[in-house]
Amino acid sequence: MQRTLIRDIGAHIGTRLTIAGFAQVIRNQGSITFILVRDVSGVVQVVVTKDVPEAMDAAKAISLESVIEVRGLVKQEGQAPGGIEIAAAEINVLSAAEPELPIPIFEKGSQEEAEQSIRMDWRWLDLRKPSHLLIFKVWTAMEAGFREYWVKHGYIEIHSPKLIGAPSESGAEVFEVNYFGRKAYLAQSPQFYKQMAMAAGFEKVFEVGPVFRAEPSMTSRHATEFTGYDMEISYIKSHEEVMAEEEKAIAHALHHVHTQYGDEIKKEFGRELVVPVAPFPRVTFAEAKKILREMSVPSEKENDFSPEEERKLGEYINEKHRHEFVFVTAYPHASRAFYHMRDEQDPHLTKGFDLFWNGLEVTTGAQREHRYDVLIAQAKERKMNIERIEFYLNFFKYGCPPHGGFGMGPNRMMMKLLGLESIREAMFLYRGVKRLEP
Amino acid sequence: MQRTLIRDIGAHIGTRLTIAGFAQVIRNQGSITFILVRDVSGVVQVVVTKDVPEAMDAAKAISLESVIEVRGLVKQEGQAPGGIEIAAAEINVLSAAEPELPIPIFEKGSQEEAEQSIRMDWRWLDLRKPSHLLIFKVWTAMEAGFREYWVKHGYIEIHSPKLIGAPSESGAEVFEVNYFGRKAYLAQSPQFYKQMAMAAGFEKVFEVGPVFRAEPSMTSRHATEFTGYDMEISYIKSHEEVMAEEEKAIAHALHHVHTQYGDEIKKEFGRELVVPVAPFPRVTFAEAKKILREMSVPSEKENDFSPEEERKLGEYINEKHRHEFVFVTAYPHASRAFYHMRDEQDPHLTKGFDLFWNGLEVTTGAQREHRYDVLIAQAKERKMNIERIEFYLNFFKYGCPPHGGFGMGPNRMMMKLLGLESIREAMFLYRGVKRLEP
Repeated sequence: MQRTLIRDIGAHIGTRLTIAGFAQVIRNQGSITFILVRDVSGVVQVVVTKDVPEAMDAAKAISLESVIEVRGLVKQEGQAPGGIEIAAAEINVLSAAEPELPIPIFEKGSQEEAEQSIRMDWRWLDLRKPSHLLIFKVWTAMEAGFREYWVKHGYIEIHSPKLIGAPSESGAEVFEVNYFGRKAYLAQSPQFYKQMAMAAGFEKVFEVGPVFRAEPSMTSRHATEFTGYDMEISYIKSHEEVMAEEEKAIAHALHHVHTQYGDEIKKEFGRELVVPVAPFPRVTFAEAKKILREMSVPSEKENDFSPEEERKLGEYINEKHRHEFVFVTAYPHASRAFYHMRDEQDPHLTKGFDLFWNGLEVTTGAQREHRYDVLIAQAKERKMNIERIEFYLNFFKYGCPPHGGFGMGPNRMMMKLLGLESIREAMFLYRGVKRLEP
Repeated sequence: MQRTLIRDIGAHIGTRLTIAGFAQVIRNQGSITFILVRDVSGVVQVVVTKDVPEAMDAAKAISLESVIEVRGLVKQEGQAPGGIEIAAAEINVLSAAEPELPIPIFEKGSQEEAEQSIRMDWRWLDLRKPSHLLIFKVWTAMEAGFREYWVKHGYIEIHSPKLIGAPSESGAEVFEVNYFGRKAYLAQSPQFYKQMAMAAGFEKVFEVGPVFRAEPSMTSRHATEFTGYDMEISYIKSHEEVMAEEEKAIAHALHHVHTQYGDEIKKEFGRELVVPVAPFPRVTFAEAKKILREMSVPSEKENDFSPEEERKLGEYINEKHRHEFVFVTAYPHASRAFYHMRDEQDPHLTKGFDLFWNGLEVTTGAQREHRYDVLIAQAKERKMNIERIEFYLNFFKYGCPPHGGFGMGPNRMMMKLLGLESIREAMFLYRGVKRLEP
């Protein structure tokens, strides 16, 4: 007999069918046993009575979180959660759980969660909570939304190598790999390679893939490995075109999420997902610093924001513009990567931007410097090892269209989308300085 | 003035517009100069006459493969390729190419390609050839097709970590990473983690991401880093359900490619893409060996096929079944991973399969062993270090649905889709023992 998903059984009242899932709660009341069975789509109550002794014997032996298959009659039942229950005719244990679970999932008194690091040790049990599962359903919808935008608008997908011969960008915070006796490095971003695609005439590309940062940072916003969404477009006049493209892609993706999961997000996370309207508000870096000074927020760095400043700026924008997003533009050149193009009017500034969502940086973007000579000059100014990045500089020697793009952190996007406290909850498996397992 | 893509200019005859792209061919005939301009969408002839002296001066100074912007009038012209040309009113060089190109792209006499390894050194120039660009347009369509299938059928997307604490599977051929003074490894596949998703109750997952193999193999079918498509589904009765799912996904994806690029593939690669019809032919491993013996193909290994056997089997299936694909099932347990489930009838065989496309293995799949005790016994039989895979074995201790899945190589899929000679041509940037650059 075909298995029916629990969310679909309401259409089958009065018929016999088979469901399968985890035994989430078991209440044994002597002559009657109730089991809450959970699959990927929902939860249903199974009732087992002594009229069916084989099922009753099976039910009594089940340990919590075992995987069971239940055949039975679908009935309306006012007392049951959702108003439906299944009267069991047959129960099979497909996979028995050990009687002692290492972390609580659904027993009484488990409202208080185990400490995060312990939950991460048993991540596959932690992910059984429907709210945690929902994070990845929403991710799937968000990524599908972005991809739909990209594919519909003629972007080409690339999968650039993560093993590279020279440390990209700064050389700091890069993981070293033993590559047949020589050194290789793990890519910190696909930056150089998506620019290579521009030099190859691909014009519009996107990439989704892992990025690696050997940062010993332990904050709730950092990880040593996370997913990056990257895009790059050619024949732009300025970074404004990149920003215009980004806000359209985000609006499209979040609309997609809202349509599919808006209600569930509200129910599980108490968060009203607002699909943002383009154009997003924009402030220059200097304006933002002025606003923050006027709000008496202490400034730690001249050329960058502190996390406190980012949060306060988010609150200000939310109040002033009724918008959760803000682009900050015209960053000082000193705080940006050497390949960001300088502003023609004021060479101390760049044609780069960051995007913040409710006080958290989710994107860095820019028009890139595509002029070979200027790019070399900018690298030298930073005292970079030109030889090490020669392979990259060569991309610009044989004609390269003007271009720009951005890198986005979908894990951070998920944090803001669902109001999660930590990026670790927005990753299937978190990786940090002290965490490589499971 | 907005830029128009070259494929769209036919709709604008008699009007002025702007195009931009690479100067592919320049023919200077004294009072008139012809330039073939190429963008991501096509090629068009630009004609420059001495009536427009500024444009003529600009045209004379252009080096091959420079990026130029041309404003001009669209005219019908029987002599021009495609019957259309643009009479230049203004030409701007956006990015000048150095006069000597390191590899030929489009000059006369460049029909013969530079040697592959030299082309790979200058990959961004090599990718400017429209047939090479087409590979990645087709990839984009193929991946979008697979994803459409997965998302529509309720799969959840995961991004599992590539940095892992213990060498997965065999421990051989794995890259070692210096991880803050301890050892980490690069994942050879997301196998263990997609199974973890099954233990977490995700039921159906897919992943697209890089996989790493420290194999010193130099064949045209191998690389040290490539892209993997992985999926895994729960509540199956046997690997037959995995195969049924795979053939539907492939048919869907290739139909998608055929609709968008069937004609271009035929034109550029001379390959008639046949959208395969499900069900695909199936033969058992023993049957296949028998067929090959009868064809007098030498057998090198008892428990596996040689590349020669794979090719010959492909030819046989093509002739006998008029089908490019074939599933080989019932492999000997000795030649499969320890986590493949054994056949209940004959424990020397597994519930695993490989999929071949025109003689090349493109997929390995199986029903997995989800029973904790049986899995440990199978690992011990292989003399595996149980402690090292304890984190994995734990996934099966607290209830895990029966499940199975496959891993597919999209680079190999692209080889067969387009009839490419080498996997290196089907990667944006190839990585091999001796290649980490660019």
